[in-house]
Amino acid sequence: MEQICQYDVFEAKFEGIREGNPFLEREIFGEFRCSGNTQRVRGFYDGDGRYIVRYLPMYAGEYTYRIFGNFAETEFTGSFTALPHRTQNHGIVNVSKKTHFSYSDANPCLPLGTTCYVWHLQTPALYEETLETLAASPFRKIRFCVFPKHYVYNFRDPVCFPFEGEPMDASILTEENFNDYSEDQSGNRFDFSRFNPAYFRIVEKAIRDLEALGIEADLILFHPYDRWGFSKMSREEDLRYLRYAVARFSAFHNVWWALANEYDLMPWKAGRWKEYGEFVRAEDPYGHLRSIHNCTKVYDHSEDWITHISFQRCDLYRSAEETDALIEKYKKPVCLDELSYEGNLPFGWGNISPQELVRRFWEGALRGGYGGHSETYLNENGIVFWSHGGTLKGGSPARIAFLREILESFDYQSLALCKDRMWDELRAETEDQSVILFYHSFMRPSMREYLLPDGKTYQAEIYDTYEMTKETVPNCSGKTKLRLPGKEYVAVLFRETV
Amino acid sequence: MEQICQYDVFEAKFEGIREGNPFLEREIFGEFRCSGNTQRVRGFYDGDGRYIVRYLPMYAGEYTYRIFGNFAETEFTGSFTALPHRTQNHGIVNVSKKTHFSYSDANPCLPLGTTCYVWHLQTPALYEETLETLAASPFRKIRFCVFPKHYVYNFRDPVCFPFEGEPMDASILTEENFNDYSEDQSGNRFDFSRFNPAYFRIVEKAIRDLEALGIEADLILFHPYDRWGFSKMSREEDLRYLRYAVARFSAFHNVWWALANEYDLMPWKAGRWKEYGEFVRAEDPYGHLRSIHNCTKVYDHSEDWITHISFQRCDLYRSAEETDALIEKYKKPVCLDELSYEGNLPFGWGNISPQELVRRFWEGALRGGYGGHSETYLNENGIVFWSHGGTLKGGSPARIAFLREILESFDYQSLALCKDRMWDELRAETEDQSVILFYHSFMRPSMREYLLPDGKTYQAEIYDTYEMTKETVPNCSGKTKLRLPGKEYVAVLFRETV
Repeated sequence: MEQICQYDVFEAKFEGIREGNPFLEREIFGEFRCSGNTQRVRGFYDGDGRYIVRYLPMYAGEYTYRIFGNFAETEFTGSFTALPHRTQNHGIVNVSKKTHFSYSDANPCLPLGTTCYVWHLQTPALYEETLETLAASPFRKIRFCVFPKHYVYNFRDPVCFPFEGEPMDASILTEENFNDYSEDQSGNRFDFSRFNPAYFRIVEKAIRDLEALGIEADLILFHPYDRWGFSKMSREEDLRYLRYAVARFSAFHNVWWALANEYDLMPWKAGRWKEYGEFVRAEDPYGHLRSIHNCTKVYDHSEDWITHISFQRCDLYRSAEETDALIEKYKKPVCLDELSYEGNLPFGWGNISPQELVRRFWEGALRGGYGGHSETYLNENGIVFWSHGGTLKGGSPARIAFLREILESFDYQSLALCKDRMWDELRAETEDQSVILFYHSFMRPSMREYLLPDGKTYQAEIYDTYEMTKETVPNCSGKTKLRLPGKEYVAVLFRETV
Repeated sequence: MEQICQYDVFEAKFEGIREGNPFLEREIFGEFRCSGNTQRVRGFYDGDGRYIVRYLPMYAGEYTYRIFGNFAETEFTGSFTALPHRTQNHGIVNVSKKTHFSYSDANPCLPLGTTCYVWHLQTPALYEETLETLAASPFRKIRFCVFPKHYVYNFRDPVCFPFEGEPMDASILTEENFNDYSEDQSGNRFDFSRFNPAYFRIVEKAIRDLEALGIEADLILFHPYDRWGFSKMSREEDLRYLRYAVARFSAFHNVWWALANEYDLMPWKAGRWKEYGEFVRAEDPYGHLRSIHNCTKVYDHSEDWITHISFQRCDLYRSAEETDALIEKYKKPVCLDELSYEGNLPFGWGNISPQELVRRFWEGALRGGYGGHSETYLNENGIVFWSHGGTLKGGSPARIAFLREILESFDYQSLALCKDRMWDELRAETEDQSVILFYHSFMRPSMREYLLPDGKTYQAEIYDTYEMTKETVPNCSGKTKLRLPGKEYVAVLFRETV
């Protein structure tokens, strides 16, 4: 009997009807049974008369299945064994402890992430370079788009498109006129009723390659940066696309659904997001995480289908500083998916210093959220990591790795921002006060007095979070005055000693 | 006939009654007449039977005067000539163009300032050192207190006190207990009905020495940092003190009245500030500027007696960024008198980097306000510039001088923050668009496109405001793309060429 591992994709292919428009007219379902429980999943047409059903076994055990639908004259049955999961596959990420994340196997997930919107649509060489970069990075989540991207630095057509048809002529695009074609998408001849499976296989390869690196694929389902009409499909076309995407991608354990990037830049879809979000929830048998990302107007994240907040800062000056207010308001995890990126682009969304980006990660961390990185250095070849991937040259990734290492050295999910803190103090504590963490942000105290809880003894760890140094002071208790570097970006972690 | 210059102090001394308590029981007034106009001013008792009347002649011309009151049996008369003002004395600072400042002689006043709360109460050597520092500095305003200061780093008694009597024992003060004595001011034996003229002469020497340097004395009349009881006098005592201070100091053209530092830390005076402000306005014959400074709660600056806003930032992250909202709300000039200071103290009010302080000055400048500096590096001898004065060692003063030089190179008072600017843009223009100023703050564009007004040609001046470099690009018009340093703190000034 076929064997796979729990949390890995089971996939079965079938020949079926290719006449007419199978995308519109044919359906395929699988019913999977294990230990008396039955789960029904939707399959999809992969072109050339080929139908595929994928299934994500959440439990180890013996599975039987039945495949049915109007895709073929007959039904199919089969079985497989799901062995216990591989050590490096922890399953799906879920919300845990209300405002944090953990995997199916109960391990915590610390999704400090990055963004490369269309890294999967670049040349094979660049794609491989990006994978190498990600493998060496501290990032455990990457935001990218299902659809190709039309924007400054993004004029080249991908090798193929998600629908059958022909794109407009991209050779006429310049930095001056490209915005005109965001509005006028009339030069294209796409048939939104016929998906191009080859395109979706490119997305799948990206999901699989990320999976091998232990990285979550935060899939952006809709975005406004478009010249082909993919952002302006009808409601019916959108829902068909969502159904197809969920059927193809949901069996990959590392998928997150990001309903939109900058939803508010697609006002023509206003009023439809809740329906779309609920639709994805209904279609997805596994309950992958679902979010929606704003540009200038934060979405109402109290809607029930939203599992966590994907936040873009709405103020030029305050960014990660909003994290605790968002958590307080929505009681959901916060991913600070756009804090402005490290780089030197002309635009405010992509030209902050590594120091400032790392500062925002730390502010976010103490306030209970998860920072998001990307890099936007203008290169002569027009390759910008934020969109295309490639090699990182910035200063922030190493410091984000340092932050990750520090957070993972204790139960960071029980860290809570203290409400009784002083006006110039950022202090968070674990529930049991075994760790008390101060972050001095842009301030530069050369010494500071800390008041530690009665009856406990701590080791102080003084981190220069940018220089990545650590100094230890043992036996701290009560009123504790520490000499500090007198530099920006210092964190002081008190760790209880027994 | 005695000759002085316009805007300089005319002073006349008289022997009078010394019996009883002249501070309570005696009054002296002067009536000054010039070109048919008469002005009455109050004099004051200077101790030892000596009464003084000071007068600030606002016009050049022949003055006659009459001195009267119950201080002596007889009246006195006299005359003097006021010659046109010295080149370096521009007179009193007034509000001009609603939200800016100019001197009596119509020259603009750019009051970028600093703070040394009790610099005048230090040793003669330190006092002289401070004067040398100020002479070489870009600061044209200094905030300091009439009363001595009790606070961390400020435990030593001054050489004398503003009232007759004896202070509590200062030798018992420590960093741990000093706050207790802010509350309990019972160890003192001061007679608030008897001023100590020697103390007030110290303040006057400071005002005169600043005048010689062309620096405005922003005199803080009340502050909460006290162990002697001076902050907790009764309403009647407060008013008597204000009357005495105004009578002594108002003839110095460079005096500004700061009713309080951190008024909201003296809740026992709540409800009295308006009365005090109006009292000072009524007592002051010359209309010196009047303000009141907040700690965490901004005062209602719409009160009529307030000439300008003395603002302390109320948010850890947003500071000078509030300037334009304050101007919009109150239609008064804004002095950003506490933006946090350059230094390395344990406290958030005194440990930001010079880069960050200068950034706040620039943010303030483009938004129409005037930054305030001080320096708070912890020295081994306990001398902190912010309180004691001394020598500056920080990085911000030179950059503030650079800002001053740039602002003074055009009609900065007609600069207005543009409302139609992009979200990541800080842009201000002069009324006639002869200067258009961009400041990129913490952002680091390596190039940027600027849209210049039709039909005008500009020279672009690219300033690295921290490195203090300038690069010039001639012949800019229309859409202008500039290569920029790709570093923080860059300003781009477009100056119209004819």
